[in-house]
Amino acid sequence: MLPIISIVGASNSGKTTFLEKLIPELVSKGYRVGAVKHDAHGFEMDREGKDTWRLRRAGAAVIAISSPDQLASIRRTDAEMNLREIAARFFWTEDILITEGFKREHFPKIEVFRSALEPKPICGPEDNLIALVSEDDSDARVPKFSYADFRGVAELIESRYLKGRKKRKLLVQLDGKPLPMNVFVEDFVIGGIRGMLSALKGYEDPGTISIHIRFGEDD
Amino acid sequence: MLPIISIVGASNSGKTTFLEKLIPELVSKGYRVGAVKHDAHGFEMDREGKDTWRLRRAGAAVIAISSPDQLASIRRTDAEMNLREIAARFFWTEDILITEGFKREHFPKIEVFRSALEPKPICGPEDNLIALVSEDDSDARVPKFSYADFRGVAELIESRYLKGRKKRKLLVQLDGKPLPMNVFVEDFVIGGIRGMLSALKGYEDPGTISIHIRFGEDD
Repeated sequence: MLPIISIVGASNSGKTTFLEKLIPELVSKGYRVGAVKHDAHGFEMDREGKDTWRLRRAGAAVIAISSPDQLASIRRTDAEMNLREIAARFFWTEDILITEGFKREHFPKIEVFRSALEPKPICGPEDNLIALVSEDDSDARVPKFSYADFRGVAELIESRYLKGRKKRKLLVQLDGKPLPMNVFVEDFVIGGIRGMLSALKGYEDPGTISIHIRFGEDD
Repeated sequence: MLPIISIVGASNSGKTTFLEKLIPELVSKGYRVGAVKHDAHGFEMDREGKDTWRLRRAGAAVIAISSPDQLASIRRTDAEMNLREIAARFFWTEDILITEGFKREHFPKIEVFRSALEPKPICGPEDNLIALVSEDDSDARVPKFSYADFRGVAELIESRYLKGRKKRKLLVQLDGKPLPMNVFVEDFVIGGIRGMLSALKGYEDPGTISIHIRFGEDD
């Protein structure tokens, strides 16, 4: 599964500024990086009066805009999607997903910490904190990196989450929630699906298989 | 599969204005509507200086921004994604997808036509044209609706593409491309997958199942 690392910290601690150095470092190591930002207060992606804004206002639950070099989408949701579902839905070709925020989810966290803003780090090892980016003292028992040491942080991420990973990945979601399974069952499910599909006309060994099933009332 | 209908026409023919009436009409009939706009010239969804813009500039191939009521994403692409893939990737909960533009794809088309802009409709039956929205005369041999008759167009779409559709839907994609299969094979694949998964701990009859497999070098 796609590794997810969260960069957390108080407002104005410098999360985005640190990410502006960390992401290019990971990209230069050859990884395809995705990023998700959490915005508790809502956000305005679209601009009033633009065609996409007009289609949304008319009642489209999801809009997308497509051009040769980029594709954007805006989806109205009843509740915030969890990170694992966001990862599976929107980041199907990436090697790693870095998030800004999402401190309540359980993914490994790196906190950007300034003692001028908070007396102590907002996360601890119980929150899956794996490192601190800070110039200040703290008693957090995790490795500490200076703001300038984005290379050290990239190396930590690479060695723990990217190097030597099993290349094959299976994710099964029921109503958006991942179904956990061990390696043996994973092999069984992948083998079963590949076996069924490979009998079909048009099947040629693919790099990825995606399957979406929606059950109806008659099922 | 999700029905896709394209609203096409010359620039300034009134496509978006017509969609602003058609979409609410379909929504009021109880359908969940998605919309995609084609933009040949590229578009600017993000704003310079915003955090998401900074993450993209730093090299993130895909960014998303998540809040309790909406989720937006921007994906950098090497080539424009085709409509069927856009539909499967981004519109997994919708009943119908209406597009603005995409006249080169093969989906059913409704053309908004004004003879002041073009001497004759830009699409014909060979382009899968199913109706014209126009106040002007033309020799197109398809039903014609006035600009005010968005209800008539919504009824045409409903009767031809939404009523009596098989509720259950299976989509299998290999490297993003749909694998066609007949109803018998579809039943076999759905049954096989459900059979395998239902033996697993944690499985409870879901409304949807999504499976993503990425093969590695050792497969």
